[in-house]
Amino acid sequence: MASIFSRIIQGDLPAYKVAENDHYLAFLDVFPLVKGHTLVIPKPETDDIFDLSPGDFSGLFAFAQQVGLAIRASIPCVKVGIAVVGLEVPHAHIHLVPLQEIGDLNFMRPKLQLAPEEMEIIRQKIAGNFR
Amino acid sequence: MASIFSRIIQGDLPAYKVAENDHYLAFLDVFPLVKGHTLVIPKPETDDIFDLSPGDFSGLFAFAQQVGLAIRASIPCVKVGIAVVGLEVPHAHIHLVPLQEIGDLNFMRPKLQLAPEEMEIIRQKIAGNFR
Repeated sequence: MASIFSRIIQGDLPAYKVAENDHYLAFLDVFPLVKGHTLVIPKPETDDIFDLSPGDFSGLFAFAQQVGLAIRASIPCVKVGIAVVGLEVPHAHIHLVPLQEIGDLNFMRPKLQLAPEEMEIIRQKIAGNFR
Repeated sequence: MASIFSRIIQGDLPAYKVAENDHYLAFLDVFPLVKGHTLVIPKPETDDIFDLSPGDFSGLFAFAQQVGLAIRASIPCVKVGIAVVGLEVPHAHIHLVPLQEIGDLNFMRPKLQLAPEEMEIIRQKIAGNFR
């Protein structure tokens, strides 16, 4: 069965997309740690990010850098944190998380639930700053 | 003043180095979340990882992929997690953390203190698996 992320790529599930090209996709995490929490994924389904080819691995992070710069320009934060955990959805993904403090990157803490209107405002800001 | 990481690069401070080339260095975190927790840094001192040039950013992650594969081959784990926080040492660094569960990537939890002999055994294992 296709991963939830593959279903987003195929258009079977909606997502707040902030950037996309032929190989990679970035969209808002619907269970964000903080406002602006974004996921970056490779389109082909690979479970372990370390199993990507060297070109796909560094290409994914190159794309994530562009997305991170757009987040930094959109969401007030001290730094944009990066995390790959890989123990839940079996489709490699990078978390980009605007940080005020180190505890903001703790995946054990309760997630936010934002109204669709607010998610769309955040999406438009980040997408508008993506270069 | 040079960052603690620049002093390691210059050889002024000791480190359990697992891999190194002209541009990047990987060494064991002396305050590890779990055994095998490794840091990967670019040699030039840059505070915010997103300020690296596109080539340096993707080059750093390409190097980190090789280090992560060596960790995966050395330390029993479900996945190797990746994290960049950037709120402590002002020299960009990637954490590579062998994970059994998501809570292993929580930077708020108490760090391990391992004996030098055990750190050296871990260092040799990872260095020996680096390709």
